[in-house]
Amino acid sequence: VGPEALSLWKSKSTFTSFGVFFLQMGWGDLGAFGEPSKETPNLDQMASEGMLFLDFYTANPLCSPSRAALLTGRLPVRNGFYTTNAHARNAYTPQDIVGGIADSELLLPELLKKAGYINKIIGKWHLGHRPQFHPLKHGFDEWFGSPNCHFGPFDNRALPNIPVYRDWEMIGRYYEDFKIDRKTGEANLTQIYLQEALDFISKQQGRQQPFFLYWAIDATHAPVYASKQFLGTSQRGLYGDAVREIDDSIGKILKHLQKLGISEKTFVFFTSDNGAALISAPKQGGSNGRFLCGKQTTFEGGMREPAIAWWPGHIPAGGVSHQLGSVMDLFTTSLSLAGLQPPSDRQIDGIDLLPAILQGKLIDRPIFYYRGNEMMAVRVGLYKAHYWTWSNSWEEYSKGIDFCPGQNVSGVTTHTLEEHTTLPLLFHLGMDPGEKYPLSFPSDEYQRAMERISVVVQQHKATMVPGEPQLNVCDKAVMNWSPPGCEKIGKCLKPPKSDPKKCFWPH
Amino acid sequence: VGPEALSLWKSKSTFTSFGVFFLQMGWGDLGAFGEPSKETPNLDQMASEGMLFLDFYTANPLCSPSRAALLTGRLPVRNGFYTTNAHARNAYTPQDIVGGIADSELLLPELLKKAGYINKIIGKWHLGHRPQFHPLKHGFDEWFGSPNCHFGPFDNRALPNIPVYRDWEMIGRYYEDFKIDRKTGEANLTQIYLQEALDFISKQQGRQQPFFLYWAIDATHAPVYASKQFLGTSQRGLYGDAVREIDDSIGKILKHLQKLGISEKTFVFFTSDNGAALISAPKQGGSNGRFLCGKQTTFEGGMREPAIAWWPGHIPAGGVSHQLGSVMDLFTTSLSLAGLQPPSDRQIDGIDLLPAILQGKLIDRPIFYYRGNEMMAVRVGLYKAHYWTWSNSWEEYSKGIDFCPGQNVSGVTTHTLEEHTTLPLLFHLGMDPGEKYPLSFPSDEYQRAMERISVVVQQHKATMVPGEPQLNVCDKAVMNWSPPGCEKIGKCLKPPKSDPKKCFWPH
Repeated sequence: VGPEALSLWKSKSTFTSFGVFFLQMGWGDLGAFGEPSKETPNLDQMASEGMLFLDFYTANPLCSPSRAALLTGRLPVRNGFYTTNAHARNAYTPQDIVGGIADSELLLPELLKKAGYINKIIGKWHLGHRPQFHPLKHGFDEWFGSPNCHFGPFDNRALPNIPVYRDWEMIGRYYEDFKIDRKTGEANLTQIYLQEALDFISKQQGRQQPFFLYWAIDATHAPVYASKQFLGTSQRGLYGDAVREIDDSIGKILKHLQKLGISEKTFVFFTSDNGAALISAPKQGGSNGRFLCGKQTTFEGGMREPAIAWWPGHIPAGGVSHQLGSVMDLFTTSLSLAGLQPPSDRQIDGIDLLPAILQGKLIDRPIFYYRGNEMMAVRVGLYKAHYWTWSNSWEEYSKGIDFCPGQNVSGVTTHTLEEHTTLPLLFHLGMDPGEKYPLSFPSDEYQRAMERISVVVQQHKATMVPGEPQLNVCDKAVMNWSPPGCEKIGKCLKPPKSDPKKCFWPH
Repeated sequence: VGPEALSLWKSKSTFTSFGVFFLQMGWGDLGAFGEPSKETPNLDQMASEGMLFLDFYTANPLCSPSRAALLTGRLPVRNGFYTTNAHARNAYTPQDIVGGIADSELLLPELLKKAGYINKIIGKWHLGHRPQFHPLKHGFDEWFGSPNCHFGPFDNRALPNIPVYRDWEMIGRYYEDFKIDRKTGEANLTQIYLQEALDFISKQQGRQQPFFLYWAIDATHAPVYASKQFLGTSQRGLYGDAVREIDDSIGKILKHLQKLGISEKTFVFFTSDNGAALISAPKQGGSNGRFLCGKQTTFEGGMREPAIAWWPGHIPAGGVSHQLGSVMDLFTTSLSLAGLQPPSDRQIDGIDLLPAILQGKLIDRPIFYYRGNEMMAVRVGLYKAHYWTWSNSWEEYSKGIDFCPGQNVSGVTTHTLEEHTTLPLLFHLGMDPGEKYPLSFPSDEYQRAMERISVVVQQHKATMVPGEPQLNVCDKAVMNWSPPGCEKIGKCLKPPKSDPKKCFWPH
């Protein structure tokens, strides 16, 4: 595809709709990425009809910050999705988090809305559950899903069950009105989310208005669930059942686009918010392939994600890209497809991937790996330098919580937060994707690579203006006791007395 | 494909030729199996045009025994390719091995020859280098390659360089007449082996005689090499360069078959003789994906192999099989394709894979994992039971020789040979392909699976008649000092005095 194609669609780009599947799978969970049971025929077909990204990253090894990054095009340390209550601490948005996405942040759906898009989020929002953070206040037109993870069941006394919203108001709670059987793993939520997507897409038929569908469902997140028809169908156990159901659903959504004749007008991207959670393995844990460790870490297993771009008639079938990509690029790329400029009054970390997708170009750009407020590592080309290493604390590890089960690289998968800022650990990810063999410090290769990387890091740090941290303060009174709409269905609960305090999550 | 197709080709099966690519790559070295640099477009295309086997095994975690197993359809412990000079010791055929393939063994080319096939081996024979073991005495009509690995360069005093044969006679030696530059990794051997294959196939055009081409080249075996045009072209370093050259060569061979119009008459299979050697990593080591450990071990990384069947017009494109397969099945399957019965006077371990390949059937059969004379593990369905565990000795490990770099599963990747025969370690390879989570002994699942497995093991052991061990005795006088043909090219060397003694290879 040449520059002509690029200008061709630009001329009609206001009609390009977007679908983003933002899941919770590891790099190694797809057949196309080498999962040995190869149970994802629809995603594999999506890849063979589209473009596979092999070097694609999320913005954080945890869910909420990655979601905030995707929708703002900015690193969590800029958009406030981090904590300062401990050094390099991962943080997300449990129910007792007061914070969320600031009004000053410009979200992708807000920008698209101004260009005439209709925007829907299906699934997990995760950008704050207090009224001011409601997705319909941040650019989405429709919502079906929940503000937090489907943890539970809770007793509605110490902790309320998580509400499920349709648009502005809650329509029930997980475990109560939306069943999840913790014993059998049965829940039909993915089917509900699938139907929501199909219905939304059907409604767009015939409209001149483009849409943005953000399908952020959470079936592979612990507690893992699947519908009855998928239970027991995978070689991989319950986790595999959930993967199969998601794969089946994505296949149905893509076929629906084709049936309606709008697949060539819809740019679709599949990726994940963090590496597979290995602490849930083997029963509820996914696979990061041969990469080191998993969710919560800044090793490749924690942040390299499966990624597929699909856009029949535009992206050549069977393409493969080694472009270093990030979930934040979906922000900039979508704006580009909509003929919009990214905001110029703030630092945007995402880049426009269209030259990589449509013209096979490789854009030189670094990937930064953060944990909380600390830049742990950076990738430039095939080199990755670790400025800090940490898996989890000895205290946690001694209790059997292991982010790197069966893996141990001496001096790398450390159980104390170890500083290497003066002499970073350097890996060549082409020869050593598993981060097992740090390059020798005195080698020419180390010197040459670090010279290049140091410039990138200096520039990054010199211009870094951290946002107001949103994930610090916790207060049980702010939980989902009485979300909007609760009175209509008799689901309002009495909050405890407000008692804000610093969060403490053991690591 | 139904039974009609099966009988259709059976009626003309004497015209089915075979190509076997028997390489030395790990499961994770191919893009189709999830190698992150995805640099094997030709093998990936072979897979997309043919059938991918995801649960395919070699017969031994080391080269010579696996090769003997492929050509005899029998476990190394039956065909003599093992040692009794220590318990569970791996053994192969270095130059000082006296033994080799016994005359009493019936090799695939011997049987095919009687049915009118012309058979050629290109590359490494590895079934003994003494005159009586010459491949042309065991059914092959042509040979271009070497009897042993391309280790070296040697000084021709303590050790002779390995000879390269054309048919009956040597035509030179590695490093002398066939250059391998140990500094740059440059060698054009793969190009020579490719040309040999293309020429052999060209010669078959128009003949009514079917052929068997056994392409057993060794470019990814340490010391790794590649031709100048491939050096430095891979993200993965020299090992990747070698993989790319092999991939390119296989693509050319398949295209040649198509160009000559004989691809529909040629059944082609690609697989490997053992898992990638991780002791050579990262510079010369391959990838076993997410599987545990590598070459020399009976964990999945040591014995599960990439495997692709290709036969345009017969095998449906893009097929995937979970049939438990073995390199020994290539013996039985080839005989079946040739309309021949396997020998009935001996135990054959290989099965006919055609029902799996052409009809999508799943045949229930176990996989046995041997090290030397010991059955270390067995797989039945998705369960794998370890009766013995061992990576390597503490003595070796303390010197930095590591078969499982960066991996450590407590009580599993042991550095002493540990017996579990009364209570085997059991893994569910669907949920836990990395063999990290042994099932709980008191669980119902453990009890049920072991009941099934115990019957299989008892039957196997009760009927096991080990062959005469061939890999025990070593003698420097038997090395490649004066192979046939040496006098014509002035390459005869004077052997030392014969001094047979028990081999000792530290483990």
